[in-house]
Amino acid sequence: MRILVQKFGGTSVANLECMKQVRAKVLAARERGYKVVVVLSAMSGETNRLLALADEWSSEPDPAETDALVVTGEQVSIALFSMLLKDSGIKARSFLGFQIPIVTSDTFGSARILSIDDSRLRAELETHDVLVVAGFQGCTADGRLTTLGRGGSDTSAVALAAALGSVECEIYTDVDGVYTTDPNLCSTARKLDRITYDEMLEMASMGAKVLQIRSVEFAKKYNVPVHVRSTFTDTTGTLVTQEDSSMEAVLVSGIAYDKDQARITLRSVPDRPGVAAAIFVPLSTNGVVVDMIVQNPSREGVTDMTFTVPRKDLKKTLTLMEGIREETEALEVLHDVSVAKVSAIGVGMRNHSGVAAKAFAALRKENINILMISTSEIKITCLIEEKYTELAVRVLHDAFGLSSNTEH
Amino acid sequence: MRILVQKFGGTSVANLECMKQVRAKVLAARERGYKVVVVLSAMSGETNRLLALADEWSSEPDPAETDALVVTGEQVSIALFSMLLKDSGIKARSFLGFQIPIVTSDTFGSARILSIDDSRLRAELETHDVLVVAGFQGCTADGRLTTLGRGGSDTSAVALAAALGSVECEIYTDVDGVYTTDPNLCSTARKLDRITYDEMLEMASMGAKVLQIRSVEFAKKYNVPVHVRSTFTDTTGTLVTQEDSSMEAVLVSGIAYDKDQARITLRSVPDRPGVAAAIFVPLSTNGVVVDMIVQNPSREGVTDMTFTVPRKDLKKTLTLMEGIREETEALEVLHDVSVAKVSAIGVGMRNHSGVAAKAFAALRKENINILMISTSEIKITCLIEEKYTELAVRVLHDAFGLSSNTEH
Repeated sequence: MRILVQKFGGTSVANLECMKQVRAKVLAARERGYKVVVVLSAMSGETNRLLALADEWSSEPDPAETDALVVTGEQVSIALFSMLLKDSGIKARSFLGFQIPIVTSDTFGSARILSIDDSRLRAELETHDVLVVAGFQGCTADGRLTTLGRGGSDTSAVALAAALGSVECEIYTDVDGVYTTDPNLCSTARKLDRITYDEMLEMASMGAKVLQIRSVEFAKKYNVPVHVRSTFTDTTGTLVTQEDSSMEAVLVSGIAYDKDQARITLRSVPDRPGVAAAIFVPLSTNGVVVDMIVQNPSREGVTDMTFTVPRKDLKKTLTLMEGIREETEALEVLHDVSVAKVSAIGVGMRNHSGVAAKAFAALRKENINILMISTSEIKITCLIEEKYTELAVRVLHDAFGLSSNTEH
Repeated sequence: MRILVQKFGGTSVANLECMKQVRAKVLAARERGYKVVVVLSAMSGETNRLLALADEWSSEPDPAETDALVVTGEQVSIALFSMLLKDSGIKARSFLGFQIPIVTSDTFGSARILSIDDSRLRAELETHDVLVVAGFQGCTADGRLTTLGRGGSDTSAVALAAALGSVECEIYTDVDGVYTTDPNLCSTARKLDRITYDEMLEMASMGAKVLQIRSVEFAKKYNVPVHVRSTFTDTTGTLVTQEDSSMEAVLVSGIAYDKDQARITLRSVPDRPGVAAAIFVPLSTNGVVVDMIVQNPSREGVTDMTFTVPRKDLKKTLTLMEGIREETEALEVLHDVSVAKVSAIGVGMRNHSGVAAKAFAALRKENINILMISTSEIKITCLIEEKYTELAVRVLHDAFGLSSNTEH
């Protein structure tokens, strides 16, 4: 039995017309001889509508009940789509997460998949052509409903593809693939034919919304090729896959950016052991994800400690920093929300020097001041003033030869 | 552990304000020392919204998928209400049908409860004050979601009350009890303090919308007292209960009516064995519920066969009758949709003669022609022209001394 997992996002199931396009994709896979497992998101807007209800009902909605509430979105999608398939004479039925089951941790709102029992689905595929599975959801070992976090349907799909040995996992969305950078921002952005898991992880962590970051981790771990493509066209999309030799020629694959950044500086803290822990342990305990961290070289026994956090966590962060002001002996706590990150990402840069220098030179040429720098094996990130974001993206995109006019 | 089951209908959970009134009822029961099992319907209008989606998606929506779709309505209610309770410091959690489980037959759309496992709920009540259960839903033995039919939340509540040994089952709705007849139609209608299961069954089968008929059958079978009362007042409602000696004084408890009737006559069919079967077997096989049946005395070997069906089934019925025209040798098939049923109901009439005569006399006095008559132990039903429905109800209501002005 050849199984193909196809996942369709919220805009692909937004209404009856869209769902008919989804049906066409499923039927095409059937024609090619696949048994199809279709993973659906909630109709676009539905999850937000339900979350708004929760916020109306409660100032701090219970996470377990919130999950029981929002999973109804996907349930509506799979029931309606199954009806549509059955109307076309397809042997289909819907599956909720708990019916498979997809067992998860009990961290409601961002549960992790612990196991997927593939036996039930395999048995049903003997008598059905298509199984329509609710994305985004699972259940705990004792049967409470859970969700996998925003964009979790991608993870559902990849995990099912891994469990069922799908040849690849097709992720259908409203864009036709992964681009060298945001096409809304840079008209010369190019669709990539292939991208490695690691590059995709960096792109996703920088706010590229095409795939949920955990779905890419999952795909990498189980080596599931992920094909990102459009529901509304027939063109080939982008294959997210293992690195192979043909990819090494490219130095940088994409330019990403993230405006959801706030910078905090603790001025003039004593440069002694324990200070960093005093600052970052409370942040971590309170769920604030710190991104870039820079410590200035010490002068006269004191230093400045600078870091960035998501903007939504700024208020919480400032409160926490005030709470440790005495302990850290910081002279003052400064903050700035008019900042953004831009990154150049590529597995190719591992084997090449000078990528950082090239990026800095390109930004300097436009007088864009670099506030902070961080690097990883396959990424160079610069924090800059937010107003320069678009300019910086375009400049880097050109500098690394990604623009379509440099190729055609 | 003293357990009380309280059920709230769609208008009682229509919005946040209504749900706060529901919370007040639950808290009051807690004050009285009960562990509370709350059964909720979908927010009013929600089930219809979902069914309209199904009809948009499919000309003949798959029943199993329709159930998977519509059960989301109750799921939203219980999640939101549980949040509300937790915000008030109540130890509460939601339960879906499959989580209990409430196991049903696989007749999707009108499933019957086969078993309720009370052990999980009892265990959870040890650590929780209130369990919030989704009404209307269950699951098959292999875990597919089912619904119990329109108004099925009443049945869920009564079944849970039976399983958990609840002192009674409180059914909260937007009216304050069961009336001697429809108060919208007869201004002198009185709220009944008590009514027997059998009387309530007759009232419900005549279209009195207060309780789902199967919930009353369930209550009767397990002898669960059902207290019908209003969410929006504190007055005592109507207790639906076993017959007891104090009730026998009342001849007739209520007057019901039903305009959802169509009358079909097969004219001049041969009066021989097998004709009735030829007519009614195809109706039954095609799911048409025949109500009243009258066969005229035979004249010269032929007779007229007259019966009533719900109006929605008229078209189907006429098609079926045309199909057996030759076989039955009927001269013609007549039909009439301008008819209605009125009934006088009361366990008291069992031991008294003359109730039928009194009803006929009252109708004759107003020149209301009786088209068909059927009687049971505790009910007399007359089919009349629809235009006389309201008049007939008021006349019978007065004739049997039910009007409030005859008491005060």
